Amino acid sequence: MTALNSTHDPALRSWVETANLPGADFPIQNLPFGAFERDGEVRTGVAIGDRIVDLQALHEAALVDGDAAIACAAACGGALNRLMALEPRYSGALRRALSALLRSDSPLLPQVQPRAAALLPRIADVTMRLPCEIGDYTDFLTSLHHTERHGRYKGLADPLPAAFKSLPIAYHGRASSLRVSGGDVRRPHGQYRDAQGHVRFGPAPALDFELELAAFIGRGNTFTHPIAIDDAHQHIFGYCLLNDWSAKSIQWFEQVLGPFLGKSFHSSLSPWIVTAEALAPFRKPAPARGAGDAAPLPHLHGAFDQQHGGLNVELEAYLSTAQMRAASTAAVRITRTHLDNLYWTFAQMVTHHASNGCNLRTGDLLGSGTISGADDLSRACLTELTNAGKDPLSLPNGETRTALEDGDEVIFRARAVQPGAVTIGFGECRGTIAPAFDASVSSATSTTVRSEAHA
Amino acid sequence: MTALNSTHDPALRSWVETANLPGADFPIQNLPFGAFERDGEVRTGVAIGDRIVDLQALHEAALVDGDAAIACAAACGGALNRLMALEPRYSGALRRALSALLRSDSPLLPQVQPRAAALLPRIADVTMRLPCEIGDYTDFLTSLHHTERHGRYKGLADPLPAAFKSLPIAYHGRASSLRVSGGDVRRPHGQYRDAQGHVRFGPAPALDFELELAAFIGRGNTFTHPIAIDDAHQHIFGYCLLNDWSAKSIQWFEQVLGPFLGKSFHSSLSPWIVTAEALAPFRKPAPARGAGDAAPLPHLHGAFDQQHGGLNVELEAYLSTAQMRAASTAAVRITRTHLDNLYWTFAQMVTHHASNGCNLRTGDLLGSGTISGADDLSRACLTELTNAGKDPLSLPNGETRTALEDGDEVIFRARAVQPGAVTIGFGECRGTIAPAFDASVSSATSTTVRSEAHA
Repeated sequence: MTALNSTHDPALRSWVETANLPGADFPIQNLPFGAFERDGEVRTGVAIGDRIVDLQALHEAALVDGDAAIACAAACGGALNRLMALEPRYSGALRRALSALLRSDSPLLPQVQPRAAALLPRIADVTMRLPCEIGDYTDFLTSLHHTERHGRYKGLADPLPAAFKSLPIAYHGRASSLRVSGGDVRRPHGQYRDAQGHVRFGPAPALDFELELAAFIGRGNTFTHPIAIDDAHQHIFGYCLLNDWSAKSIQWFEQVLGPFLGKSFHSSLSPWIVTAEALAPFRKPAPARGAGDAAPLPHLHGAFDQQHGGLNVELEAYLSTAQMRAASTAAVRITRTHLDNLYWTFAQMVTHHASNGCNLRTGDLLGSGTISGADDLSRACLTELTNAGKDPLSLPNGETRTALEDGDEVIFRARAVQPGAVTIGFGECRGTIAPAFDASVSSATSTTVRSEAHA
Repeated sequence: MTALNSTHDPALRSWVETANLPGADFPIQNLPFGAFERDGEVRTGVAIGDRIVDLQALHEAALVDGDAAIACAAACGGALNRLMALEPRYSGALRRALSALLRSDSPLLPQVQPRAAALLPRIADVTMRLPCEIGDYTDFLTSLHHTERHGRYKGLADPLPAAFKSLPIAYHGRASSLRVSGGDVRRPHGQYRDAQGHVRFGPAPALDFELELAAFIGRGNTFTHPIAIDDAHQHIFGYCLLNDWSAKSIQWFEQVLGPFLGKSFHSSLSPWIVTAEALAPFRKPAPARGAGDAAPLPHLHGAFDQQHGGLNVELEAYLSTAQMRAASTAAVRITRTHLDNLYWTFAQMVTHHASNGCNLRTGDLLGSGTISGADDLSRACLTELTNAGKDPLSLPNGETRTALEDGDEVIFRARAVQPGAVTIGFGECRGTIAPAFDASVSSATSTTVRSEAHA
């Protein structure tokens, strides 16, 4: 057994062979946390290759000890909140113990391998669940390019809101309708203005995806106590992919105090929390601000965050239509972007969020906002990809899209990439648009129509 | 023992004498639910006069049976969610059993009175808590007068948003910073534009209160399944007072996607949930729309709701400054308003909220928005009471206010009033502005300033 420095060591390989395949999302250097249902019970686990280490089974088998055992016990019970609320050294100890258990030269292999079926179910054999209880969900708007493009679509003289470069703009999202990746995303009913300017209620046209990364809060802050910028990273347990599905037609009509029913019908999360610890080798300086831009105000400007607040994460969106699946055509990539396209770091989002004394709680979710960049391929929603509908997206099979249609599946993928480090993945975030319910409530038109747009 | 028709019977009196005093908030016809801390344990209870029936003690004493005992058991454990999730007949049975137990001619009196100290602690001797776990908090904007006045302050040509009469406008609020009435409301730090137009970070000026009523969801709806308008009332367990404290200076600067840190520093709730059942005698038709206004779209237009969707509830706000308290001067009433000032009913808020398939969960909270009316006394926040700061509010002791100052206490009260019914109250919602923390984070000015307002 070679002495290895850390769970990040690129020389590490696992006896779970699928973890060592090129392009695997979950090599032994990743070890992300999630929750899954098995035999009618919700459990938590850690992904390795195509398998999950069942943490409750691990706990019962007493295969880890010390801080790792404390972490393992805290992770039992179907949600990760109690583990996430602990000092990071506990989840760190558990990841180190798992790394030792899963590495190809593990001395524990003779004990583990006979019980592998119970200890390490296949991901394909279980149903993934949300990894933790999410008390509050906040969604930010931190891509300058996304924000500026949308400002231009609205015809604003200055497409960037005045506050954009002073603070990470955000709104409170809906926690109850967060769902784990997979399955149907039901097209919502809602009120919108039709082409004639009439207000209608019915299945919402103009459905869109929005590609985001989201951070999970580990330890929270005390109510009324802010979080200093260079402490903020310590409050982030890890990250997942987020599809902030948007019913643009509803949103455009309803939006006075921010997004509401245009978003709250469904938001999808990838099942695995890739830990901040696993992402440490992929840290990089905070993305550079524009040449003429002032530094952030002091409370959002930290030496550690400026040097290490960025992450080398590449993200992609794929589209698979019903026609494509019928023809066994592979999903087509429509977006490729990078976390560098965010104007604010996650630490700045955390510090801003708590700057008024608002308490962040373990399990709270902070979405980055749509991660669009300057170039065309990095536009991270259909609204941008089609220039607000003016230039329909052409698919290889001849179909076109200005909005998502029933049967369209959207798949997000992301990976952290750094020379000298083993690439780690986030898994997938998937969802397929299902037709709206044929509600007993029929579509109807209001008789008074007002023409003004009112932002 | 006289035969009495229902818990609403105006002839009912209680052997808890304080419940029979004129003007009592909690007569035997009310029986609102809440949670409190006693001997380090959080319990639930029902208010009667100046006392609380401790539901856990009641459960242990086996003084109720049948559906009432099931309800009582469900209410144990420190939060009311399990009770609220049951069919309404269970809480109804518990309220009937409590009515029978507490009435002046109760045959159970000999059993109850010797244990009254344990069964019925004084409200003054316990610490009230939030009555239930609140998963999601939504705040609406349903007063036409409040909305129109704010539109005028902003100088909008049409002060009413285009969607206002089509749907109840709303935003997702922050659940983590909801707090029960009482104690300090810490003045938040935040970014705002000072008189010179510079962006500053520091203790927020322009702090305001907003007087609202809020509904608690009892039984939720299944994800993706809307709630029909005439079923919506059955999803409301009860109501409380809500102070949607607002840091207007923060809000004006940050607001692009709706209110965020300008609200999320603290929101106060009165401790008692006055049940929809107790309010049944106070039902009235939905407030009349304006003469030229169209009927709501069919899915928001229900026969039951149109006839019974209003509530005869009067609300008041009082202000007590530090100077007034030092001089032992009573708090002064600054607002008196009525629920009739809402353009939308709570049932319409519920149905709209679920119309896109968003799932409401037991314990979710729906705020009405500031309940301002047309006349001057019914303006339900300082911004309106001072015409956006132009006409400072003059207090009897010579002080003036355009915004809340440190040491100011705001007290909300409300009662349901109906000829032939015993008036029932909501208790109080209180909070006192405490000075901002002397944060290590110092106040600072950004160097780039942009002048455009960006709504």
